[in-house]
Amino acid sequence: MPSSPGYSNVFRLIATPELHASGTIISTVASAGAVITGLDVVDPGHHSVVLDLSCTTLDSGHVELVRNKLNQLNGCSVEKVSDSTFLIHLGGKITMDLKVPLRNRTDLARAYTPGVARVCMAIHENPADARNLTIKRNSVAVVTDGSAVLGLGNIGPKAAMPVMEGKAALFKKFGGVDAWPICLDTTDTDEIVRAVELISPGFGGVNLEDISAPRCFEIERRLRESLDIPVFHDDQHGTAVVVLAALHNALRLVEKDTSDIRVVMMGAGAAGVAVARLLMESGVQDIIIFDSKGPLYPGRDRMDEERTALAAITNPRKHDGSVTEALEGADVFIGLSQPNVITGKDVQAMAEDAIVFALANPDPEIDPVIAAKHATVVATGRSDYPNQINNVLAFPGIFRGLLDSGAHRITDAALIAAAHAIAAVVSDEALSSIYIVPSVFDGNVAPAVAEAVVAATA
Amino acid sequence: MPSSPGYSNVFRLIATPELHASGTIISTVASAGAVITGLDVVDPGHHSVVLDLSCTTLDSGHVELVRNKLNQLNGCSVEKVSDSTFLIHLGGKITMDLKVPLRNRTDLARAYTPGVARVCMAIHENPADARNLTIKRNSVAVVTDGSAVLGLGNIGPKAAMPVMEGKAALFKKFGGVDAWPICLDTTDTDEIVRAVELISPGFGGVNLEDISAPRCFEIERRLRESLDIPVFHDDQHGTAVVVLAALHNALRLVEKDTSDIRVVMMGAGAAGVAVARLLMESGVQDIIIFDSKGPLYPGRDRMDEERTALAAITNPRKHDGSVTEALEGADVFIGLSQPNVITGKDVQAMAEDAIVFALANPDPEIDPVIAAKHATVVATGRSDYPNQINNVLAFPGIFRGLLDSGAHRITDAALIAAAHAIAAVVSDEALSSIYIVPSVFDGNVAPAVAEAVVAATA
Repeated sequence: MPSSPGYSNVFRLIATPELHASGTIISTVASAGAVITGLDVVDPGHHSVVLDLSCTTLDSGHVELVRNKLNQLNGCSVEKVSDSTFLIHLGGKITMDLKVPLRNRTDLARAYTPGVARVCMAIHENPADARNLTIKRNSVAVVTDGSAVLGLGNIGPKAAMPVMEGKAALFKKFGGVDAWPICLDTTDTDEIVRAVELISPGFGGVNLEDISAPRCFEIERRLRESLDIPVFHDDQHGTAVVVLAALHNALRLVEKDTSDIRVVMMGAGAAGVAVARLLMESGVQDIIIFDSKGPLYPGRDRMDEERTALAAITNPRKHDGSVTEALEGADVFIGLSQPNVITGKDVQAMAEDAIVFALANPDPEIDPVIAAKHATVVATGRSDYPNQINNVLAFPGIFRGLLDSGAHRITDAALIAAAHAIAAVVSDEALSSIYIVPSVFDGNVAPAVAEAVVAATA
Repeated sequence: MPSSPGYSNVFRLIATPELHASGTIISTVASAGAVITGLDVVDPGHHSVVLDLSCTTLDSGHVELVRNKLNQLNGCSVEKVSDSTFLIHLGGKITMDLKVPLRNRTDLARAYTPGVARVCMAIHENPADARNLTIKRNSVAVVTDGSAVLGLGNIGPKAAMPVMEGKAALFKKFGGVDAWPICLDTTDTDEIVRAVELISPGFGGVNLEDISAPRCFEIERRLRESLDIPVFHDDQHGTAVVVLAALHNALRLVEKDTSDIRVVMMGAGAAGVAVARLLMESGVQDIIIFDSKGPLYPGRDRMDEERTALAAITNPRKHDGSVTEALEGADVFIGLSQPNVITGKDVQAMAEDAIVFALANPDPEIDPVIAAKHATVVATGRSDYPNQINNVLAFPGIFRGLLDSGAHRITDAALIAAAHAIAAVVSDEALSSIYIVPSVFDGNVAPAVAEAVVAATA
């Protein structure tokens, strides 16, 4: 695994001028395997110099290795090591700003008292005007309870903040949406539902995030019933949209029909359930879903409400064997589960032009290099392999579209339209086994998704 | 009352070129009493021209008068009238923005996955780090239930949004605070308390706003007990701080001692209670508080919990007569109640160098022009008379200070320090009967208040 930009560090050193001049510092760090990106003199003293050495390392163990190597040098000591990821987080990643001037009395009298009272009364008389005259037109609450943050588990609402701020930043950057993080100090389903209902008047949408299954299903369902603004659980539906987009293009490449394929899915958590449902909604007929206890089928034990419902509509051939057996002759494998649960042999046994989406993060269900030996298309959740399944392709454009259309709810039709819009950004010329989804930095994606969602919800 | 900048309008007209050339449009609008600020040609046609006439009017009745006069002109019709106050509200007054770049993979890997996971885990291990590594360091929730918005009453959470956005904008403009409006869809005390507790992890402070009495007292008290971030009800404490600052300077001007003065207060709502308490906390000994039923004293009927508590510590001379009687020989009148409840005669009967704060908005307890005939210092809540008591002088600096010091709660000592800091911005040379508080646009105020609050809470 290559050195990640997430581990970029600044080593503050005190060294003798002789050591600095000799180049030994650079060669020591380089020989320890770190990639040097800069060496700046902070304080050029006669007896000792203060240096900031910027470099990229593999992980925290690697940082310690470099630190030790430097400290072992004669005439060099490491004062502190700053992690540049932490440096950019200082004070948070988002900010609030004014869209109106407040320079003088005239400005104040319009934006605040007394003028604002007329705007308030207009909304009081016609509450729908809140969408025109307030930020409700463009705002989304990014709501979590911190119970299933990334792969970190239940780390709580404060520790979830950096992810929610990052999410909010992505909403703005790619969708022009004013998102604000709301991290709730409870994991109680009733309390979460009620809290979101209570704060909803000022928002135009709710993006649920990193709430653990099965609570996330009930929370979303109840909020969709009670609120008149769209409610979207990104871990479910954002993932489902991008998987569908990727599958659509993979099938376009291998020239197979959605209604003919056999799909084997591993994982029946929040994402797995939503992906399975959206695939079926868009025409997939033969899908077998595995959880850690085996395949879902009617009457199997240890199934919750969601799994029971899925069991009733999937697994048409009543498979009750292993994943290995299920993959024989299958066209598509979709993993949203655990690292290393299928093998190269399993992929080899799949149908011709097999499609493997191994989306467990950071370690996929199968090493993508091994999978690619036998499959025509391989996708992962990682940015360092081809075909990254990244929700950033979906949620900014989806909410941009929902806010633009003033939609009160989000439909499966809108999600499928969003998936097709993402897929369509990849032209016939560009489409290949290593390019089935556009780059997350492709500026065409969010507007195309927004347009499709507006058309589907108007 | 002069034409307010809150009533600035744009009349879209269709007129004959001849009428436009004749100047009749301008003279008609001017003769109707509107102040013309511009006349722009939108579409110069041969047979008819489209014009945007910008002007300031007194109120909505005045708008209709101007509209009718224009429509009565031969060759002129008003297509629509846009209120410039509404125009600046379109889409809301605040926005969210990024503090970090998201241009490429390296940026994304630091601000979001995978780098963000290390920041999350650092907070998980040491929750206090949320104040360093997230926007909690600088964010305040502006929370209302919409039950007592301006003088508009219980207009609900959606209609309250324009005020809360305005408040948030003022927080940023004057205090550099990232405030976000949270308008709650309930007026139930327990639900409000719980909702604020639940959303608190992502915020560094809570500013309660426009919540009606007596619920506001209990809500604030319970939140102050349960939360580890400062909770401040601006209608109470913001007002109290600015009144104290103004009183401090008024007494400085007339050379009277806080401990010697006799104060008569009218109003025992949220603001009245807080003002009375802070005045006593800062040395006022003789204060009589009236509500609509008369003066507070122990054993009086129709008193709630707050009034009973105040009755026990105020009114030392056991006055139980009228306001008129109480004002005889009094040094200070403070009104936070209803229009026109005292007379010029009442003020005339006060002690020499009387101080009158008539703060009911928009119509004060006494016409300030009449009050000024008999009092040395007169202050109101209005921007069009001297000495405006405006909370904008207090809350941005107070929260700036609380956030900078990382304070977990706000104390009376901090509020008194804030009041003295506001007062001290007015130099001895500048201090006069018409200048006892600085301008709300004085850039020295918020930093001085913040510094005082940091010193008082450190």
